[in-house]
Amino acid sequence: MTEAKKLSGAGLRGQSAGETALCTVGQTGSGLTYRGYDVKDLSANATFEEVAYLLLKGKLPNQAELDAYKTKLKGLRDLPQALKDVLERIPADAHPMDVMRTGCSMLGNLETENSFDEQQEATDRLLAVFPGLINYWYNFSHNNGKRINENTDADTIAEQFLWTLHDKKPSDLHVQVMQASLILYAEHEFNASTFTARVCASTLSDLHSCITGAIGSLRGPLHGGANEAAMDMIENWKSPEEAEKEIMGMLERKDKIMGFGHAIYRTSDPRNAIIKEWSEKLSKDVGDTVLYPVSAKVEEVMWREKKLFCNADFFHASAYHFMGIPTKLFTPIFVCSRLTGWAAHVFEQRANNRIIRPSADYTGPEPREVTPISERD
Amino acid sequence: MTEAKKLSGAGLRGQSAGETALCTVGQTGSGLTYRGYDVKDLSANATFEEVAYLLLKGKLPNQAELDAYKTKLKGLRDLPQALKDVLERIPADAHPMDVMRTGCSMLGNLETENSFDEQQEATDRLLAVFPGLINYWYNFSHNNGKRINENTDADTIAEQFLWTLHDKKPSDLHVQVMQASLILYAEHEFNASTFTARVCASTLSDLHSCITGAIGSLRGPLHGGANEAAMDMIENWKSPEEAEKEIMGMLERKDKIMGFGHAIYRTSDPRNAIIKEWSEKLSKDVGDTVLYPVSAKVEEVMWREKKLFCNADFFHASAYHFMGIPTKLFTPIFVCSRLTGWAAHVFEQRANNRIIRPSADYTGPEPREVTPISERD
Repeated sequence: MTEAKKLSGAGLRGQSAGETALCTVGQTGSGLTYRGYDVKDLSANATFEEVAYLLLKGKLPNQAELDAYKTKLKGLRDLPQALKDVLERIPADAHPMDVMRTGCSMLGNLETENSFDEQQEATDRLLAVFPGLINYWYNFSHNNGKRINENTDADTIAEQFLWTLHDKKPSDLHVQVMQASLILYAEHEFNASTFTARVCASTLSDLHSCITGAIGSLRGPLHGGANEAAMDMIENWKSPEEAEKEIMGMLERKDKIMGFGHAIYRTSDPRNAIIKEWSEKLSKDVGDTVLYPVSAKVEEVMWREKKLFCNADFFHASAYHFMGIPTKLFTPIFVCSRLTGWAAHVFEQRANNRIIRPSADYTGPEPREVTPISERD
Repeated sequence: MTEAKKLSGAGLRGQSAGETALCTVGQTGSGLTYRGYDVKDLSANATFEEVAYLLLKGKLPNQAELDAYKTKLKGLRDLPQALKDVLERIPADAHPMDVMRTGCSMLGNLETENSFDEQQEATDRLLAVFPGLINYWYNFSHNNGKRINENTDADTIAEQFLWTLHDKKPSDLHVQVMQASLILYAEHEFNASTFTARVCASTLSDLHSCITGAIGSLRGPLHGGANEAAMDMIENWKSPEEAEKEIMGMLERKDKIMGFGHAIYRTSDPRNAIIKEWSEKLSKDVGDTVLYPVSAKVEEVMWREKKLFCNADFFHASAYHFMGIPTKLFTPIFVCSRLTGWAAHVFEQRANNRIIRPSADYTGPEPREVTPISERD
């Protein structure tokens, strides 16, 4: 870890803002662990519900615990009518992250977390309801007022997302990919959205405020949204050759290329190999001959020219696309996943709290007196 | 100012998290300045619109600028029907800060800030709309579905708040007090809600996300809400004698007494003398013989026994109460005011940005492997 030091205006980079038992990022050069488990191990050998349980309750569940947890979450998918009414009033051209933020905030009015004893219940409710929430809005606003049934027979959150989006049971392969994706995005230490949630939690505010604030921060293009930007780029190219030519031009013009490099990882993002493998499987499954080869070529050129590696977002773009997910819903999936990390950090902040209230270096005017309005310039 | 140093888990106290030209808190022991002007000077010689202009645009307006700004704000009070529909679906027992948070978030869907060029417009809109927003919900939910007219003839934001709450033109005295109150709460450096807004802004997210997040943090009982807690306490007491006896008992039991002391001020809160004077005037105006004397006695006893001084919140409780403001709307008034400081900090963060992404000290388990589910405890 970088030594803590004073770096005014430099985004607290390398400064410790607290303790966590949830996650390490890049501690062995490239690793990512959740409560000590490597994310590669988890994505190969666990489901998202097990990871959610691990982050929120501190241990991997046994079979009986997992079954009970999944049954519970399945029973919490119902969207209150007042929430549906709100979603129906949000226009089709709204930013989907604004829909998530508003939906979460509205639910806080209808089902307020009145005591910290309710934090697990409130989190489970959000975990169960978020996929249906965004897809209810998406289908209503983009699909001629179609009102989906959010109470599907989906067995998992991964399946629930795809089912409520397409209004039909998804394939096993798609559910497997979505499981892995939700695991990869679940937690990442004191990133900006998680830190937002912790600052909010430190005032002892409610869970919905913390999560609503975190969604607002994840919305920013410097944080979430890189997979959407990557998709917007690669879908323009019809062949690996065209992709190489265009990327070389972008590099020459010093254009920003999304989905590469990372603020903390130095040599690779441990999540990339996992989602890349799934993207390749999906590519074969749909008979793709363009998007995956284009993506692989972009990865090759970026490494060859700039020694920049794909982060978690880059192959997510093609993977999501192969599953028929509209690009604008990529970041809301991130919310459905990261909710687990955000909430676990809120629990942790509450358990050992001091209000987060830093200082600032003053750079403004010297003391001065109010001039009467008639004498002002 | 305290030296910056590493204080893990201690809320970044005394650590610099950036620069600001907006505010100093306690730099001369007890002072509070906005862009170099003492808050006492501003509250005596300016209106809230002048302070908003100062914070957002960097200078006090001349008469022509002020007139134009007020005219502009008056033209931005209209609540969109979709927003009214949302407010009507929020139950009467909701937390009013959840209503503010949801209303702000919803407006972000209807009138998205699509570029930072729109930041002043988006802020002005929120400044104009917030008083009507909360009072529309309050009247609808608490007053038999009454739909107020938010497009009043009120000349100022202070008047607009009181007018939309009571659905009638307020007295000059009440408008004067509300002006002072809005000025006193407008800005306070890197407090937790403002810091929330800056963390969100640092991802380059939109203004509505930043303000929505800030509202969520101000909702926490360690931050906003102290004036409400003070009111809940003092309204129980029928005389200064009873107040003294009860306070002495609370001190003996080490109960938390809200409205006293401050994380940064050491000898007094510069805002207290101002709001106390207004509270006394209002007390005489309404012929009060209980609440103001009780409040003054509590102040006297707290200083005598504990050398604890009233902060900005304590005499706000009685002042708001004398104006017929329901206790649950005290913190939403704080929002109508602090919005100016939050937005000014967002502008400042955007103008010299690096994403706010601190580190954490890891306290969790050592690396371990995922056990097959059948073998887990």
